[in-house]
Amino acid sequence: MEVNADNFFKAAALDKPRVTNKVGSNVTLINVMQIAGLNTLGISIARIDYAPLGQNPPHTHPRATEILTVLEGTLYVGFVTSNQPAPNRNKFLSKVLNKGDVFVFPAGLIHFQFNPNPHKPAVAIAALSSQNPGAITIANAVFGSDPQISDDVLAKAFQVEKNTIDWLQAQFWENNHN
Amino acid sequence: MEVNADNFFKAAALDKPRVTNKVGSNVTLINVMQIAGLNTLGISIARIDYAPLGQNPPHTHPRATEILTVLEGTLYVGFVTSNQPAPNRNKFLSKVLNKGDVFVFPAGLIHFQFNPNPHKPAVAIAALSSQNPGAITIANAVFGSDPQISDDVLAKAFQVEKNTIDWLQAQFWENNHN
Amino acid sequence: MEVNADNFFKAAALDKPRVTNKVGSNVTLINVMQIAGLNTLGISIARIDYAPLGQNPPHTHPRATEILTVLEGTLYVGFVTSNQPAPNRNKFLSKVLNKGDVFVFPAGLIHFQFNPNPHKPAVAIAALSSQNPGAITIANAVFGSDPQISDDVLAKAFQVEKNTIDWLQAQFWENNHN
Amino acid sequence: MEVNADNFFKAAALDKPRVTNKVGSNVTLINVMQIAGLNTLGISIARIDYAPLGQNPPHTHPRATEILTVLEGTLYVGFVTSNQPAPNRNKFLSKVLNKGDVFVFPAGLIHFQFNPNPHKPAVAIAALSSQNPGAITIANAVFGSDPQISDDVLAKAFQVEKNTIDWLQAQFWENNHN
Amino acid sequence: MEVNADNFFKAAALDKPRVTNKVGSNVTLINVMQIAGLNTLGISIARIDYAPLGQNPPHTHPRATEILTVLEGTLYVGFVTSNQPAPNRNKFLSKVLNKGDVFVFPAGLIHFQFNPNPHKPAVAIAALSSQNPGAITIANAVFGSDPQISDDVLAKAFQVEKNTIDWLQAQFWENNHN
Amino acid sequence: MEVNADNFFKAAALDKPRVTNKVGSNVTLINVMQIAGLNTLGISIARIDYAPLGQNPPHTHPRATEILTVLEGTLYVGFVTSNQPAPNRNKFLSKVLNKGDVFVFPAGLIHFQFNPNPHKPAVAIAALSSQNPGAITIANAVFGSDPQISDDVLAKAFQVEKNTIDWLQAQFWENNHN
Repeated sequence: MEVNADNFFKAAALDKPRVTNKVGSNVTLINVMQIAGLNTLGISIARIDYAPLGQNPPHTHPRATEILTVLEGTLYVGFVTSNQPAPNRNKFLSKVLNKGDVFVFPAGLIHFQFNPNPHKPAVAIAALSSQNPGAITIANAVFGSDPQISDDVLAKAFQVEKNTIDWLQAQFWENNHN
Repeated sequence: MEVNADNFFKAAALDKPRVTNKVGSNVTLINVMQIAGLNTLGISIARIDYAPLGQNPPHTHPRATEILTVLEGTLYVGFVTSNQPAPNRNKFLSKVLNKGDVFVFPAGLIHFQFNPNPHKPAVAIAALSSQNPGAITIANAVFGSDPQISDDVLAKAFQVEKNTIDWLQAQFWENNHN
Repeated sequence: MEVNADNFFKAAALDKPRVTNKVGSNVTLINVMQIAGLNTLGISIARIDYAPLGQNPPHTHPRATEILTVLEGTLYVGFVTSNQPAPNRNKFLSKVLNKGDVFVFPAGLIHFQFNPNPHKPAVAIAALSSQNPGAITIANAVFGSDPQISDDVLAKAFQVEKNTIDWLQAQFWENNHN
Repeated sequence: MEVNADNFFKAAALDKPRVTNKVGSNVTLINVMQIAGLNTLGISIARIDYAPLGQNPPHTHPRATEILTVLEGTLYVGFVTSNQPAPNRNKFLSKVLNKGDVFVFPAGLIHFQFNPNPHKPAVAIAALSSQNPGAITIANAVFGSDPQISDDVLAKAFQVEKNTIDWLQAQFWENNHN
Repeated sequence: MEVNADNFFKAAALDKPRVTNKVGSNVTLINVMQIAGLNTLGISIARIDYAPLGQNPPHTHPRATEILTVLEGTLYVGFVTSNQPAPNRNKFLSKVLNKGDVFVFPAGLIHFQFNPNPHKPAVAIAALSSQNPGAITIANAVFGSDPQISDDVLAKAFQVEKNTIDWLQAQFWENNHN
Repeated sequence: MEVNADNFFKAAALDKPRVTNKVGSNVTLINVMQIAGLNTLGISIARIDYAPLGQNPPHTHPRATEILTVLEGTLYVGFVTSNQPAPNRNKFLSKVLNKGDVFVFPAGLIHFQFNPNPHKPAVAIAALSSQNPGAITIANAVFGSDPQISDDVLAKAFQVEKNTIDWLQAQFWENNHN
């Protein structure tokens, strides 16, 4: 097979603002599904748009570390460390990023970005250390899976009553499917 | 340095029942911290105890796949797939495991084990594909981190009011620190 | 393709005693051949049964480290280090394991487990750091291959007469094929 | 050691134009030297500035694939395949990239970016699949090393007279050290 | 499928002198294309012939480190370090190798071997840490690609006039295609 | 630290015949212990000398595949496959190699080389896919370890009487330590 430049190219329009979703963000990921030439090469890139007060909600990448730089606006970002011994047990590390700053979210840790500005959008470019990093949005996986996780399990996990879980699931489902 | 058998050994008492925690489980993990000879070798092992109706609550291992077999009792187990396209988007896969069954939790995915029996404990042996797999309990990282994640962020992520988040965090903190 | 829980499950009956073989053991390995969802995930699990005075004879795993815990009985286990400089040259490291103890056999080294009890069986759960670890039983590979390795080669290697090798091979073949 | 957010942060000012060098470019790379928390995580990020008609000259990354998106202006980019059999032998693949386009330079291949606009600068964000990707600028390594590579070697390699090599080296040295 | 010894064998005639090319060398590489059994095993081997004053011209292997030993004659070998900080920036490391000496060319660095003897050939055996290491001959990739790299790009990269590049390209093309 | 060419060089005299050992061979391995610059680079090289009727006895490399070419003489080589299902279970694959032939021994499998010529020595160059491949000579590990493996274990493993094992061990020890 003769290779050509288009195997390594995508007219991705990463310069264009995107319409943001219900939580005020939009991730445009260019991975091996968009550029076949990335196969086995271990990297991908994304533009992330944030509405005013929008967020890329708490999530993990099961197969990648993320490095991010802010193009426009301000971002309040953070991640939580794992169940390590003190003083690093479930420690929440956060930082306000201005334009041009760089931040790293280590592989597999729960992290988010939030635009604290009520008037202006924000934009970031992020890169991930896999051609297929995956993403798991915590709320969607925990309260919005199909089918729902049993409320017996979640009630004890989150240490609330089952009807609280039922209400959280119902509300999440309604918000995301209507 | 002369190596000896104790560099590869731990009198781990994995045959002994453990006192379970607030959510009814106890993970006794033997990793590179307990057996120095595991360094670079990419594996660890654990005994997990489950009280009646106890659970190993939803969590991820940022650096490992887990394979588990049930020694005693019954376990209802599951994991949620990532944000893939349909029909696999945030799909909850679950199974009831009896003694001797084997189940796999792929690296980085949110998973749990729950003992559905109200009268009898359950026990499993699990192995993980890292000498230091890490563990992130979702509820602890999201509602129990130190310091707490901003309620602005979590309210929008979970699509509830901020005072609901405040209440969830306060309750989780109280349950875990008193 | 829609994934489902059975891609990650095997009703392996690892709780059930197995009939042991001629040398008094039985390895029930659950790897990627039994659970397709293990592909690329780098782990597998096994139950090993040992008859009284039975053994899992000297062998290597060409692609995996093994970690083992004893469920029932007592095991005398060991491995031999490689051709390193003294004091670690071909050093035999051994340990008696009781119920609940954990031991590690580093990747590629010759190791065994032996049940020293003449009256009671023993049982272990082992995990291996590959979805397809492979196993090479030394006696079978050296004296029981098909076709047989030339006795010229083995006589010099083991520093005995050729007719000793011929006798060892004949006996091994007869024991294993009749 | 207690980790903190600054272990994963750099006020890198990637939003700020940089003064370009003699060939009209400037690479601001944020790797493990700038952010210690990147260690073992396999990724880094860079801003690249291009003067009008400037270029990031032919170079390789010995340990990384690069993925790039254009923030400002236009870039003419390309890479040359390796000594494969026809039809892919030393094939030059090139593309004109506009703002928002994405292009991939596979690990270890010679590649460049050139700003064809005589009046306007260009800017790109690139990510690399290593926390320490390395860079080898071909002209600098071949004609500008310290000490110089023997002209006997280079004359035959580039199939010119030795005094042509001497002149190329002298000129390159003078341009870069005065 | 039944495996057999021929899956792991090649009658490669690595003992036989080869006719050398225009720059006085010939690389006979035995990789996964010649021996299918090498797949996933991460190694390959080559015989390299050098005419008197011949060379294996400056090149890189994008996916492999090379280790080499001299079988016949003498070789002047070298590689250039990457764009590191001083004192290791683009440093040219070289050595004269006699029969039986061993030298290492780290993955991705530009290196060459040159036979300084005007009367006698030289021969080396080299091994590479990939079943498909790839090779990029710098002159061929830079001045002999198909199509040619734009002289605008190369003139500025090598800091010479465009007509010098045109002449270098034309000459290289003529030498290699006639 | 300033690097220099000697970090990547060894005057290994691989062109010189070596005195062979008791089984008629001598392996001169150049790994990371001899050339510090090999660290992390995943390759090493060896010269192997074979006396007439000498052998490099059955052994494994726990961390490397080996590729070998014959420089002088003839070699009868082979390896045994692992405990796979038929028709590849413990299959002995062998080949007679003449000068210039290439053969591959996959990682972790038991293999040997034997010089069938009663009058002439043989020589090979081998390369291994690790900077520290390790080697386990089967006879030394099984019958010559320090301390000896229990004869209870070996008798059952090799399916002979304990006094046969005692005699094999005693004889091996005497041959190798006197």
